[in-house]
Amino acid sequence: MFESAEIGHAIDKESYEKAVIELREALLEAQFELKQQSRFPVLILINGIEGAGKGETVKLLSEWMDPRLIHVESFLTPTDEELARPAQWRFWRKLPPKGQIGIFFGNWYSQMLHARVDGDIKDARLDQLIDATERFERMLCDEGALIFKFWFHLSKKQLKNRLKELESDPQRSWQINPLDWKQSEVYDRFVRFGERVLRRTSRDYAPWYVIEGSDANYRSLTVGRTLLEGLQAALKLKGRPRPQPHAAPLVASLDNRSLLDSLDLSLTLSKDDYKQQLAAEQQRLALLVRDKRFRSHALMAVFEGNDAAGKGGAIRRVTGSLDPRQYRTVPIAAPTEEERAQPYLWRFWRHIPARRQFTIFDRSWYGRVLVERVEGFCTPADWLRAYGEINDFEEQLHDYKIVLVKFWLAIDKDEQARRFKEREETAFKRYKITDEDWRNRDKWEQYVDAVGDMVDRTSSEIAPWTLVEANDKRYARVKILRTINDALEAAFKRS
Amino acid sequence: MFESAEIGHAIDKESYEKAVIELREALLEAQFELKQQSRFPVLILINGIEGAGKGETVKLLSEWMDPRLIHVESFLTPTDEELARPAQWRFWRKLPPKGQIGIFFGNWYSQMLHARVDGDIKDARLDQLIDATERFERMLCDEGALIFKFWFHLSKKQLKNRLKELESDPQRSWQINPLDWKQSEVYDRFVRFGERVLRRTSRDYAPWYVIEGSDANYRSLTVGRTLLEGLQAALKLKGRPRPQPHAAPLVASLDNRSLLDSLDLSLTLSKDDYKQQLAAEQQRLALLVRDKRFRSHALMAVFEGNDAAGKGGAIRRVTGSLDPRQYRTVPIAAPTEEERAQPYLWRFWRHIPARRQFTIFDRSWYGRVLVERVEGFCTPADWLRAYGEINDFEEQLHDYKIVLVKFWLAIDKDEQARRFKEREETAFKRYKITDEDWRNRDKWEQYVDAVGDMVDRTSSEIAPWTLVEANDKRYARVKILRTINDALEAAFKRS
Repeated sequence: MFESAEIGHAIDKESYEKAVIELREALLEAQFELKQQSRFPVLILINGIEGAGKGETVKLLSEWMDPRLIHVESFLTPTDEELARPAQWRFWRKLPPKGQIGIFFGNWYSQMLHARVDGDIKDARLDQLIDATERFERMLCDEGALIFKFWFHLSKKQLKNRLKELESDPQRSWQINPLDWKQSEVYDRFVRFGERVLRRTSRDYAPWYVIEGSDANYRSLTVGRTLLEGLQAALKLKGRPRPQPHAAPLVASLDNRSLLDSLDLSLTLSKDDYKQQLAAEQQRLALLVRDKRFRSHALMAVFEGNDAAGKGGAIRRVTGSLDPRQYRTVPIAAPTEEERAQPYLWRFWRHIPARRQFTIFDRSWYGRVLVERVEGFCTPADWLRAYGEINDFEEQLHDYKIVLVKFWLAIDKDEQARRFKEREETAFKRYKITDEDWRNRDKWEQYVDAVGDMVDRTSSEIAPWTLVEANDKRYARVKILRTINDALEAAFKRS
Repeated sequence: MFESAEIGHAIDKESYEKAVIELREALLEAQFELKQQSRFPVLILINGIEGAGKGETVKLLSEWMDPRLIHVESFLTPTDEELARPAQWRFWRKLPPKGQIGIFFGNWYSQMLHARVDGDIKDARLDQLIDATERFERMLCDEGALIFKFWFHLSKKQLKNRLKELESDPQRSWQINPLDWKQSEVYDRFVRFGERVLRRTSRDYAPWYVIEGSDANYRSLTVGRTLLEGLQAALKLKGRPRPQPHAAPLVASLDNRSLLDSLDLSLTLSKDDYKQQLAAEQQRLALLVRDKRFRSHALMAVFEGNDAAGKGGAIRRVTGSLDPRQYRTVPIAAPTEEERAQPYLWRFWRHIPARRQFTIFDRSWYGRVLVERVEGFCTPADWLRAYGEINDFEEQLHDYKIVLVKFWLAIDKDEQARRFKEREETAFKRYKITDEDWRNRDKWEQYVDAVGDMVDRTSSEIAPWTLVEANDKRYARVKILRTINDALEAAFKRS
């Protein structure tokens, strides 16, 4: 969920200052139009890690926009009046009216998260609060509200650096309060429960935007740009707002750094190491699926990746030492007529392994947010809601102790060209390459965005994505097998 | 929630047989059109009290419709194959494809309800299951499915009669199995948890229909007619199904018996009794709101009713013996400009009493499903989703220990005419009567439907409606005061 927000996004001062001038102007204009139309309110929720720039960003937004039409509300200690009424009352009374913008700090999410992190409530109660929140936000959206939810993120290391930096700066050391330090200690819990909350509440009508907080320029510009694009899209929709009018757009990375770019594709494995490690991992997998503890589990592996990234070869190595009765490979192509007559996820539910079984998906349900999104085979509303639906689906697998591993096999554009040519030149590989493969290359950048959004929105503790550096096939295959084995062992330990 | 399904609906044999001929034909036609279009599937969920005719109705539907396009699935004991996979798998594999109808018996609702009634799970877990169900059904609807959820109901007395009847009939006594008897014992729990489930899962895109089950003719015709109208409406919508295309219509009572008709409006109270009882109940209320236990509670009273039903007079009697600092009357008229700039419920959240306070709403948030529905001030989508939103709202009040009492003051049409004329003739009452009041009378029947739907969908254990026979003002006033007092006392006992 937080992968793309830990890769060190940054924007230099000059680019920043240049961009801000335009951004401010456009934001003011949008804000004016919002007031003119007075058709819907805008609600901005600010959450995330302490020290990741929440306060600074809010301050900046207030400076950039017309202060008469933007209201910052922070919900710290409730007042007597608030304590004397149901918990939601304090939020209702501060809701921005149509035509205006409200920034909610310390909102319902902060409260449920702190309660869970501090151990005041358990998961079941957290789920009830999440559920109530979903109903509340859904109602607000049905009533026309445009909601932005920002999660400011820092990796654990970034947080430590940030705290040290503040401490050693006498002018700023007053900014560190005990809560910050406590935060550092409870970072893991905060991120774990935060992920659960984000996974459940990132719905198409009110998605989360995870913002890497370490670089102020990047963070400020990204928030500003997201707001601007969302506002402009909503203002363009005329007529009465309908449910889901406002699925705010996903915003491309501003510094042109993506999660995929952050991979080190030069990683390789020598032939000897490969042989040895492959054999060892294959052997390990064969033992694990025969382990007594596997009887209460099942295993699912999803393979996605660039064309010619080596999915097929990797899958054959995974199954190399397994009994064919124990695993099944399901290649996902265009849906059959029977499958088209059913809800999207039906064709995957069909192939869920029984206990003690292992199913490999060669492409998967992620087609909806990859090829269908990029090629326009479904509407934005469809693929936007798919993230939440997929998370719900995978949570059910996890709850049933099905171990799910998901691989994105990444190669770079040059390596892909090399492999395409090789395929064309090798007789027995020629069937693998078509004109469509070459056409898909033109959409390389769109796929990079789609993969980034996919990982950000569907990688979670219960169903993490593994990005596989696949320029070197040997390295990729061993990494895949090792990831599967580690995941199985971890699951056995948990149960 | 079950009020309208306990009033003894019935249809005579002759009318039934005549109606069925047309109904069957129309259903077959709709089914054919459904197949022709093959744009969406239809899912019918069958739930409710044992002995209320679930099985019989399903049998009948299968006979009425083309059996090749309707599939009855009953989910009793899971098979080995099903047990080896996540719980939802067995439902996915039986989902009807586009163009066809699936009837699900013993579905997800039966399972969660039985688990809760048997004490295998607690409320928090039930809430998690409800939440998962909501996500599942929402996804199915987003994918185009048309869902009907039927709850077959019997009052406790009807259930007992039904069981006796079966027992004494040698030819049918085999139909009674131990489960039925057990059901009779656990009736109260079943209805209580059933209500919680229905309240939470009756959403605009997949509402519940509560069917009184004691009369086979009424039950069969109502189910058939509901299906037919829902099908026809969905088939008319061309183009790709969008979220909420299929908010199935609310169906007017088939035997022209309504919840309001079932009231005995001849109830009266003599002047002496009135004086004495009124004073006693007023005194009781004054003591209750000064009771120490009221410090952790608050009180809200909602007054709705026919024009000239005596709301104002009743409210004055309620507050007659109270300290003006402790209560507040909020008259609800057309929303102000400020209120129109906010979500619908905002203007009511504003007036939620603090602890130890008492707020009286002279008309209320129910305006949306009454006057706004009847007069067309909002779209059907708006008032259809309002039932769920109102239930969510009232649940929050209840969770905060706010005692909520809701009154519908009912008079008959003649009595209303009499009062209107009296107002016209009495100088100091003349301001109370306008041309609009006379115009509203033309919509009497529409209001009867709206009130029935309102009570069915928003009367619940935590926030019940009280229908007040108000032809006699004295009787009404005492009943209202007594209801408030009883509710407060019950709340004190609970806490």
